[in-house]
This record gives sequence, C-alpha cells and structure tokens, in this order.
Amino acid sequence: MMFTPQFDDVLTWSGVSAATPTEEMNGAGNLMDFLDEPFPDVGTYEDFHTIDWLREKSRDTDRHRKITSKSKESMWELIKSLLDAWSGWVVMLLIGLLSGTLAGVIDLAVDWMTDLKEGVCLSAFWYSHEQCCWTSNETTFDDRDKCPQWQKWAELMTGHAEGAGAYVLNYFLYVLWALLFSFLAVSLVRVFAPYACGSGIPEIKTILSGFIIRGYLGKWTLLIKTVTLVLAVSSGLSLGKEGPLVHVACCCGNLFCSLFSKYSKNEGKRREVLSAAAAAGVSVAFGAPIGGVLFSLEEVSYYFPLKTLWRSFFAALVAAFTLRSINPFGNSRLVLFYVEYHTPWYMAELVPFILLGVFGGLWGTLFIRANIAWCRRRKTTQLGKYPVLEVIAVTGITAVLAYPNPYTRRSTSELISELFNDCGALESSQLCDYINNPNMSRPVDDIPDRPAGPGVYNALWQLALALIFKIVITIFTFGMKIPSGLFIPSMMAYHHHDWIIFKNWCRPGADCVTPGLYAMVGAAACLGGVTRMTVSLVVIMFELTGGLEYIVPLMAAAVTSKWVADAFGKEGIYESHIQLNGYPYLDVRDEFTHRTLATDVMRPRRNDPPLAVLTQDSTTVEDVETLIKDTDYNGFPVVVSRESERLIGFVQRRDLTLAIKNARQKQDGVVSSSVVYFTEDAPQLLASNPQPLKLRRILNLSPFTVTDHTPMETVVDIFRKLGLRQCLVTRSGRLLGIITKKDVLRHMAQMMNQDPESIMFN
Amino acid sequence: MMFTPQFDDVLTWSGVSAATPTEEMNGAGNLMDFLDEPFPDVGTYEDFHTIDWLREKSRDTDRHRKITSKSKESMWELIKSLLDAWSGWVVMLLIGLLSGTLAGVIDLAVDWMTDLKEGVCLSAFWYSHEQCCWTSNETTFDDRDKCPQWQKWAELMTGHAEGAGAYVLNYFLYVLWALLFSFLAVSLVRVFAPYACGSGIPEIKTILSGFIIRGYLGKWTLLIKTVTLVLAVSSGLSLGKEGPLVHVACCCGNLFCSLFSKYSKNEGKRREVLSAAAAAGVSVAFGAPIGGVLFSLEEVSYYFPLKTLWRSFFAALVAAFTLRSINPFGNSRLVLFYVEYHTPWYMAELVPFILLGVFGGLWGTLFIRANIAWCRRRKTTQLGKYPVLEVIAVTGITAVLAYPNPYTRRSTSELISELFNDCGALESSQLCDYINNPNMSRPVDDIPDRPAGPGVYNALWQLALALIFKIVITIFTFGMKIPSGLFIPSMMAYHHHDWIIFKNWCRPGADCVTPGLYAMVGAAACLGGVTRMTVSLVVIMFELTGGLEYIVPLMAAAVTSKWVADAFGKEGIYESHIQLNGYPYLDVRDEFTHRTLATDVMRPRRNDPPLAVLTQDSTTVEDVETLIKDTDYNGFPVVVSRESERLIGFVQRRDLTLAIKNARQKQDGVVSSSVVYFTEDAPQLLASNPQPLKLRRILNLSPFTVTDHTPMETVVDIFRKLGLRQCLVTRSGRLLGIITKKDVLRHMAQMMNQDPESIMFN
Repeated sequence: MMFTPQFDDVLTWSGVSAATPTEEMNGAGNLMDFLDEPFPDVGTYEDFHTIDWLREKSRDTDRHRKITSKSKESMWELIKSLLDAWSGWVVMLLIGLLSGTLAGVIDLAVDWMTDLKEGVCLSAFWYSHEQCCWTSNETTFDDRDKCPQWQKWAELMTGHAEGAGAYVLNYFLYVLWALLFSFLAVSLVRVFAPYACGSGIPEIKTILSGFIIRGYLGKWTLLIKTVTLVLAVSSGLSLGKEGPLVHVACCCGNLFCSLFSKYSKNEGKRREVLSAAAAAGVSVAFGAPIGGVLFSLEEVSYYFPLKTLWRSFFAALVAAFTLRSINPFGNSRLVLFYVEYHTPWYMAELVPFILLGVFGGLWGTLFIRANIAWCRRRKTTQLGKYPVLEVIAVTGITAVLAYPNPYTRRSTSELISELFNDCGALESSQLCDYINNPNMSRPVDDIPDRPAGPGVYNALWQLALALIFKIVITIFTFGMKIPSGLFIPSMMAYHHHDWIIFKNWCRPGADCVTPGLYAMVGAAACLGGVTRMTVSLVVIMFELTGGLEYIVPLMAAAVTSKWVADAFGKEGIYESHIQLNGYPYLDVRDEFTHRTLATDVMRPRRNDPPLAVLTQDSTTVEDVETLIKDTDYNGFPVVVSRESERLIGFVQRRDLTLAIKNARQKQDGVVSSSVVYFTEDAPQLLASNPQPLKLRRILNLSPFTVTDHTPMETVVDIFRKLGLRQCLVTRSGRLLGIITKKDVLRHMAQMMNQDPESIMFN
Repeated sequence: MMFTPQFDDVLTWSGVSAATPTEEMNGAGNLMDFLDEPFPDVGTYEDFHTIDWLREKSRDTDRHRKITSKSKESMWELIKSLLDAWSGWVVMLLIGLLSGTLAGVIDLAVDWMTDLKEGVCLSAFWYSHEQCCWTSNETTFDDRDKCPQWQKWAELMTGHAEGAGAYVLNYFLYVLWALLFSFLAVSLVRVFAPYACGSGIPEIKTILSGFIIRGYLGKWTLLIKTVTLVLAVSSGLSLGKEGPLVHVACCCGNLFCSLFSKYSKNEGKRREVLSAAAAAGVSVAFGAPIGGVLFSLEEVSYYFPLKTLWRSFFAALVAAFTLRSINPFGNSRLVLFYVEYHTPWYMAELVPFILLGVFGGLWGTLFIRANIAWCRRRKTTQLGKYPVLEVIAVTGITAVLAYPNPYTRRSTSELISELFNDCGALESSQLCDYINNPNMSRPVDDIPDRPAGPGVYNALWQLALALIFKIVITIFTFGMKIPSGLFIPSMMAYHHHDWIIFKNWCRPGADCVTPGLYAMVGAAACLGGVTRMTVSLVVIMFELTGGLEYIVPLMAAAVTSKWVADAFGKEGIYESHIQLNGYPYLDVRDEFTHRTLATDVMRPRRNDPPLAVLTQDSTTVEDVETLIKDTDYNGFPVVVSRESERLIGFVQRRDLTLAIKNARQKQDGVVSSSVVYFTEDAPQLLASNPQPLKLRRILNLSPFTVTDHTPMETVVDIFRKLGLRQCLVTRSGRLLGIITKKDVLRHMAQMMNQDPESIMFN
C-alpha cells in the first residue's frame, strides 16, 4: 500500500535553483550558458492577446525578491528598495492629482462652452453664465440670471434681447455651435485617436480582465479624449462624462505606470494600478470616493486584492480632494448635487419606490436591447461607414429638438440639480411656482400645502416631453464615435410624483412627500436597470447627494430594478457591448452550471488533427520554425517523448520565436538542424551533429493541468480565479489536450444558447 | 512534432456521466450498483477539519442542476425551484430581522442594567435613567438628570441623596452590581456555552476561511452570548459589543441556514450566508450598513463573490432598518453618534490628523503586543485555570477604579457621544463649561472664543486619567472568558486638542477647531492601529457620525495608523489571536515571496516513510482498513499501480470509512479479503475470490495537481483562491507527494521566522 517516489527522470533536483521560466539567475551553481541571460521582450505579450496572471504574479515576486536580497548589500540599494515599496502609493498620488485636475478643467470648460452656445460674457469672455453674473447686484436668482454683463448672441449682434427674430437667431446659433463642437470632436477622434470614442468602460473591463489592447490607454488617447469629451458634452448631445472620465483616469494610470518598471514591465501589476485609477475616475465624475472604489470592485475590476482596495481608496480620495480644491461648482463641497432636505420618509412610500425600481428595470432592458440593436446595425450596414455624418446628424436633431424646451436646452447636470432639490422660498424655478397665499397660517417656505401654480403644470408637461426625447436620443447617441458616457434620464421620476395621488394620503399640513427624493430614487432605479450595479450605485447616489438617510429607498429601488432587468437578460449595458464587440471577457458573474467535463471542451476534438507538441530533446530548430509557421497557437506543450506523452512543461510561442531568433543571431553553431532541448543537460548526440540549443530557460516547468474528468464548472472557476491563459488536460499523467481561455468562452456561449432558461436561476 | 492522444487506459469515456464523487445519478447508462446510492454523511466533514471549497462548489452546482432539470417536469417542481432560487434572499431577510431585533433588545437591556448599578426608576423599575426622566418637566439637561422619579440607591435606602455616607453606599452598590453581572456572565458561559466567550471574530474569520468548529455558531451559543453580552457590558468592564454582535449575527445566520438544505448541507454556501451575517452584525453594532459590508469584505470574509456582496448589503440594510424601528436610542436615526457640526476643516489640520494616526499606530502595536503576551501567559500558566476568579477580579478592579471618575463611570457609548459632539449652549457637560461673557459681541452658542472655565481643565484631567485607565484595563479584559468586544479609547484624541497650540494659528473669531472632529479622528486612528482596517473603518466612522465631510481627515489618520502599525508587525489583533490559538487560517493579506518550490514542502520528505496510496484495483478491504487505522491522513491518492505511480484520483478518508462500513453492513459478500476497485469495471479475478467492492462512487477523479517545480508562491495562491484542502504533487504524471493546507501554513510560518525583514516590503 506504500510506494516510494522514484526520481528516475530527474530533470533538476536542486530545489531553489530549479528555473521557473522568468526567474532571474543570481545564485551559484547555475550553468550560465548564453540563453540564460534575458533577451529583449521575453515575457511580453502581443497586441490583442490575453495575459497569464499567474506568470505575471510570479515574475513580480521574482523582481521583488531580487530587490529585497539586494537591499541588504548597500544603503543605496536599501533606499531603492524602499522607493520601490512606496512607488505604488506615489503612483496613486499622481493619478489622483492628475485625474482630479483634468476633471476640474473639464468641468470648467464644459460649463463655459455650454453657455457659449447661448451667449457670451462681456466683462470676460472666458466666464460662464454663472461666473459672469456672480458679482451682480441683483438679489433674486431670477434677476441675477439676467445680469447685464451676460448677453445672448442675438442681443449682442442685433441689440434686441426679445422678440421672434432674436429667438430664431439664438436658436440658429445654438444649433450652429452644437454642430461645430460635435464636428470638431468627431474629427479629432477620427484623425488622432480612434480609441478615444465611446464610454471606454467595456474596453477597460476587458483590459482589466487581462487582455492587451495597445494604445487604448495611451497618451494620445488621454489628450484627445479629454478635449473631445469637453466638446461632446458641450455640444448638448445626450451623453454623460462619467464613463469617459473613467477612461481618462485609466489613461493617467497607464501614463504613470511607465514611470516605474515595477508597473510598466508587469501587465498584472499594471492592472492593479488601472483598477485604482478607475476608482479615481468615478470619484471625480460623481464626487464619490467610496462609490468609486465600490464601482471599481463591483463593476470593472477583475483582480482586486485588498492592497488594491486600500490604494484605490487613496487614489479616489486624492482625486476627489484635488477636484474640491479646484472647486468647479463654486460650492466647496465634494458632492455635486448636495440635497438640503433631511425629511424622513414613510414606510408606505416603499411601494412607489419599488414601482420606480420595476420601471427602472424595464427601462434598462428596453434601453439595452434598443441600443445594442442600433449598434449592431451600425456595425453591419452602410451606416457604420459615415461616423462623422452620423454624429453631425444626431447633434443636429438633438440641438433642434432640445432648444425649445428649457429642460433639455440646459446641461444635464444643471437639470439634475434642479430636480433633486426641494423648493425653497427664493427659488425661481418653474417647478417651484406655487401660489403664495399671504393669508395662510403656515410659513412661506413650507410649500407643499399651497396649491400648485400654472408653472408647475407647465413644467410637468415640459419634463414629460424632455423625458421621452432623452430616452429616444440616448439610444442613438451611446456608441457613436465620440466620447460618450451614459446619461440616464433621471428626471423621469419627477413625473411620477403626482400631487393628486399623495394628497389624499398625507395628513393635511404635513410636509410628507419630498419630490427631490423621488427624482433621486428614480435615477438610481434607471441606472440600476442599465448597468446592474447595486451597492456601488447606492453609495454613489448618496455620496452625490449627501442624503445618508435615504439608503433604504435607494436600495429598494436599485435591487428591484436589478431583479426586474435580470429577469429579461443577465447582461448590463457594458457586458452587452463587450459581447457585441466580441472581446474575450470571462464574466465573474455568470455561473456555469452545465454538466460538461474538461474532455468535452479541450482541443484536439475527436476528429481534429493531433495536438502540436514539442519533445524535450529530439526536436530540431527547423522543426520548431515549421511548427511556428504552420500553426497560430500561442504556445506548445513539451513532452518527454511522443511515445510516452508525459508532460514536462509548456513553452510560449512568442518566447520560442524570440529565443530562436536571438540564438540564430548571437550564438555560434546554431543552425536549422541543431537540436532544441529543454532538459537540464544536453542530450547525447553524435559529434557530427551541430551544437544543440538549450531552451530550458523559457520553459514553464509548472504548467497548469487538470484531468479530463474535471467538471467544466471547476475549470471555469480556475480560469477565472487564477487568470489562466491556457490549461493542459491530462489523464494519469498523459497529455490529452489543451483548453484556452477562448475555448472556455466559446463553450460557455454555446451552453448558454442551448439552455437559456438555466441562467434565470442564479 | 505531432502526437495523437491515445486513450489506452480509458477508465470512462462517457463524458457527462463520468461520475464526479458527489454527483447525483439521474441519467441512463449508469450501472446502478449498490454503492451508487448515496449513503448517510458522505461528503460531510469532521469537527476541526478544513473544507474543500471546490468540492462544495461542485456539489452545489450538482444540486442546482438537478433542481433546474426537475423544474421542467411539473408546476410544483417549478415553484420549488423558484423558492430555492429565492431562499438566499429569504435567509438574508430573516438574518436582518433577527439580528436587528437582538441588537435592539441588547441595547435596551444594557441601557437599563448600566443605570441599575447607580439607581432605579420609581415610576417603573424597567425604565433606564433617561427613559425615567424623559417626561420630567425640568427644562435644562442638568436638572432633568436629577428628576425625582429616578433615585440613586443610597437615596432610596437611607433617604439621603448627598453626603459621604451616601457616596460610599452608592460606590459599594455600584461595585456589587458589577460583580454580580460579571459573575453571572462568566458562569453562564462556563456552564452552557464555552464558545460564547471572547469577541468571536478570530474564530469567525477561521470558520469563514473553511474550517469546521461545530457548535461555535449553534443555538446555545446564540442564546448565551446574547444574555452574557448584556451582562458583561452592563458590568462596566472595558469591552464593547461590536465583536460579539458579529458573532451573534453569524449564529443567526447559521440558525437560518438550517431551514434550507441548500445552505445546511453545503459548507461552502453556508459560509456565503455567514459572510453576509457578519455584515449585518457590524451594521447593527454601529448603525453602519455599508461599513458592515466593507468590514465583511475587508476583514472577515474569505470567499466573497459579488452575489454575496449584494446579499450582504440587503441583510445589513434590513438589520439596520429593524434596529431603527426598535429605536433604542430614541432619536429615530440609523446612526448612533450623530454629529451636528458641519464646519469645514483646514489643510493645515492634516498635520495633527497624521500625528494622531502615528499615535494610533503606536498604540495599536503596543496594545496587540501586551494583549497577546497576557493571553499567552493566561494559556500557559496557572492563571488559565481560574477564569471565573479572573473575571471577578478584573471586574472588581474596574468598578472600584471607574466609579470616582465620571468619564469611566458611565457607559462607553454615552461617553463617546459626548466626546464626539460639539458644545451647544444648552449642554450641561463639564467639557462645555466655558465662561459666559454677556458683553461679548458674538452669539452665545459660538463657544470657542470664550475663555475656558475651570470645568474644562477639570474635565481634561479626568479624561487623561480615564484614558490611561482604559488603556491598561482593556489589555487585561480582551480575551477573558466572557463576551468581549474591543473598546477603543477614542477619548484620547480630546486630550491632544490643546487650545494653546491652535489659538495662535486661528484667526480671532473664527470657529476653526472642532474638538469632536479630533475625537473622531483619534478613534479612527486607534481602531486602525489595532485592527488594521482602513476603508471599512473610515466608512463605519462616517456612517456612525454622519460626517461625510470628514473622509479625508479620517482616511489620513487611518492610513497613517496602518502604516505605522504595519512597520512593527503585519498582524492585527484578530490575526494575532488566530495565530495564538493556532487556527489553520491562510491570510489573504500575507504575500509569500520566498523562492521555495512545491517539492520543498510536499510530504513525504526525503527521509520520511513513503506516501500512503491506494491502487485502483488491487487493494483489499482489509488493507484499506489497516491503512485507515495506522494513519491519520485525511485522504489517500489512488494510483494505477504501485509500479507506474500514475495518479488517477483521490479519496477522502471519511468517505472511505463510511463506504466500507456501509458495504460491510448492507452488501452481501463483502468481506476483509474483498478487493476494492476504483475502475469502471470490476477487475478480472478468480471465481474463488470474494465479491469485489466498487468504490468509484467516492473517488474524486479530478484531484488538484501541481508539478514539483511549481513555485510555492503559486501554490499558496492556488490554495488561497481555490480554497483547497490538499494538492497532489506530480512530475511528468507520476505522483511524488502531497501538500495539505497545514503543510502550507507550516511552511509559511517557517519562512516568516527565517526572514522577518521580508514582510516589510509588501
């Protein structure tokens, strides 16, 4: 019943010095032959390829180990090692500072350019409407809006501020400016940085999951995305700056990675920084540092260790703090739409909140389906060939339809802040146009008791129209070739808030319904339906508004919305776009519950040609080169011999190509008929044979294996948790086949399509 | 260069029906022999053993698959499957409701019993001091405290409220009550539920990481912990209710798990519920639902998928909401120590905040070292044998020393709420005893300008004494045999806030320093030093106080505190206790950076006896029984034959024992000399041989393997991420040895001790 391990086929038994493929040689006892020195680019990845997380991690540990052991040698090395240990925090600081600054600049520029569509400040043309009238002597908000320094275009050109002519001229110039901005935006994207279009979140999710898209987070993308984001938002298109800001922050992260070889040379470490950068992006987009961290955790990140959690939080805080220092909103608060009300809500209100959730879920489903259908059409038909025309057309339609309605004419953030707020006595908004009855016993600022004036009904109509318009135009806008975040028509909730329903229920005189709260809950429900976020969404919403009391309503709406939307399809908008674009993204949320085994998925399939393998000591350089030329596999298993099929390791295609190229150039005696060997010692060859080529240096001696009986659910789990690129399938130690990440994705998609019902029960 | 997979040693090639060990048989084509029917207890774990996460997950998928396929058969099955899908949310709801209720009851009971030490309410003895005087007609807080319905013991017994005699009698009764409470607490724990002692968090962390401690989360523990927590907190010992509340919530979680076989029969799923329950526990302990979720994620949980994130949030919300409905603090807010101030802070204040962080980090290190030293002494010396006496003694000392100082006499939550708050005009606290100068131009409630009265200096002295006392006594209290959370002397911060330093810096007349803010930041720094939490701590602090503006100060202090404390030792208080108790806990935070390989860690070591294995078709029942008797391994690898050593699977000791016992009882012809076989078909045996026993049913055909060259850092990563129990080590398909979780832990501890410097650079 006992057996002794027999080390008959010992390749190396020296413990520590047994070379992992990326190990740096620093000990004694190593035969330092030529190839043991690292050659350029070994261990890097090609564009549009998947990284191997385990390998990256192991490379980082090697690097770290080397620094630690060196740090004992001298003071300078010790300082270097301390700097290395702190470089993560330094990168976070830099990301926070730059993304906060950029967000501040973008906010200021958008403010100014949005107002530029309507008019100009005479005292200083670079002032926005609000800044221009800030020092005005007028007392009410309404009068202050009409301060003399600020002139609409018509007034400036013709001298007439009122009348049909002025209106038409203003209208015309508004549309013209919008078209100019969007044309500039789309042209810049087309010419300088094609990756700067869209929201960027689907791609960032894919990149963070371990995919290489070179240039997606490059300097040009950063520059062009920042500029075009301002242009696109200012043009009045129905889009938000949240997604693009995340992309901008990730570009910053990538930029600062290049300062430290720890991050620039390790794709795994780089992704830790990018996860934190995404958190900083959300932090500045909404002024919500905690929400940003949770967004990164819940929505975009793939590998999120606790260390990244802490660093993300730090980056998010620095970013938010920088933004606060720039103070683009002029209120010195971190939060954008600070709500002033702290009225309690009642249990019975949970019913409308849940209804809002249902509505949000339905809207989310509808939006995703319609948007994906439109994007698919763009991809497959003639439409996709004229992106500039498309943008111009949509901008034109948006501007023409938006101008007449005051709720669509203004920027969305202004609109949201008006909707979220309760009416105060000094408020000039139409929504607060209640009839003031001086005979009433209650104080003036207790509004809901007073009958609604005509302005309120007027406003409700305009809001309803604005809502429908926004819904329709957003479907066409999201996915165009300009930076575009997802603006969610959060205003819709207002409409639901109907005085008549609640009047009967409220005790007379009680300030029982807070309209702003409904707008907030409605916004959360819609966003929840579209993105399927829950926790991070709720946290963002309350950080955005400062309304800590309203967690329960927000949560009720967000969870309902997610449930309703999930019943129609598991994927949120970002996952749908990932799928539409065919990115190799292994979603952590899909559970794989089918009864298939590794043997059903592995290649070669039953009728396929046999698996391409190398042997440890009987393949020639020429054979290898032929194999590389004839196949496009990313790597090859190495076996003891073709007879025994016993696996000893795995070699990456890229490393193999580079090693042979390098050896051919630099190593004497290596010719086509040289034998390639992966063993510790050179094989016994005749003297007439050319010098053999030792490639053990690039051999991964610990390839990941599973048995053919392993259930696919376990395999999926392993791929997901360990971030594998491929996995070898064995039975009783014999190599049977290989499963790559793409095989896994393909199989999952197949199984989902076979049995779409099963996804309902997760 | 090519080879064809040869299926020469095909054991089973039927794809789907190839049995994973726990698979339910439902298809055709299976030889339903006797043992294919599940027998009792198969797949369960013994006490103090580690679970296999992958196996649990795969069992759950099987269960889920069965329900899904059945759900198509009838309406009833469909309803059952829907119920099953929703059972997770139902469990969360129940946990939230029960833990919220329990927390409310505990809060009310503690309030009452703490006051009972000083006096009693004449109008209704079950009223606490505050409730008793609530309806009093007195206007100021000070007078209200002395309402006639509330009588101190001395007043009630002798009729004299003042004087030395009354003071001594009150003092004596205070100590007596405290001793009574703590004696009751320790006796109940000793007699009924020994697991109810301590904070419970180290054990919960261990359990969540996949360890079995039967009864730790049982009904008795729940009941006794709830009761004794009230007693322990009321007795005035320097302990908090946070940790025990997490334990109570986890007991609730475990209780409700037993309602659904989905959770009660699967240790992996059960831990998902427990993670969420921990979040609910923190949620009610601090009134911080988001902080609770983050605490569960950052501090206690091991496996935390997104699904658990959503459910945790739901449970935490329900719990917080239930607690709010019970309203034990009488302020109808979720937050316990709501701060009213919203004054901005200045950049220059970051310096003292960071200093507070440094101080907190030092305090954390000191506390952990002293506490662990004391606990070790308790474990190893005579002291540990008299837990009841120890508790009585510590309570006696605490009560005797605490009574004279008003800041230690009261309950800690009262104290904290006083320290966190700014002074108002009506406040009767000594800390707010500023001299009122009616000639001053500024309004009365603008306090910092006025000179401090003697009360303030008095208060500062008392606070300083209270601080020192609390620091010392907490070291001895934490770890005693009664429920004890960690109360952190958050008051210390007040002391740092010195008027003189800041007076020069502040512009005259500006309300620039908020004392409460310093208390808050100080509390965060100390907690951070002791527990090493950052994000969750900051979120808890601001949910606790409602001070969203103070994220940056809190974060600065928390991060500094963590850095400083980490420089002296990586482990927080909970990890230290885990280590002290020797639990098999694989910390996700330790990074393993040594150059060892799997071959250095695996057993058998070079001079050990060979590995105990079974062969697939040549072992007899007797051999197996001898092997089980002679070894205490948790499982045995199964190989093709002892000559080839090729691995085909792994069988658990417990399953093997159960299967043989079961077969001996129920299956005819199975005797000691029967051959045990793990292959699909029975081996060719002589007719004279007894009937063989087929055990393929319990064989795990997909054991986890790594090669002997795999770096240990990868092995640690795999153990951590996949939650393995053991892993087999092979080379070229031959079995070399085995690595268990305990081997990994032992090796990590060894390496850490060898090179303690290396941990500094994480």
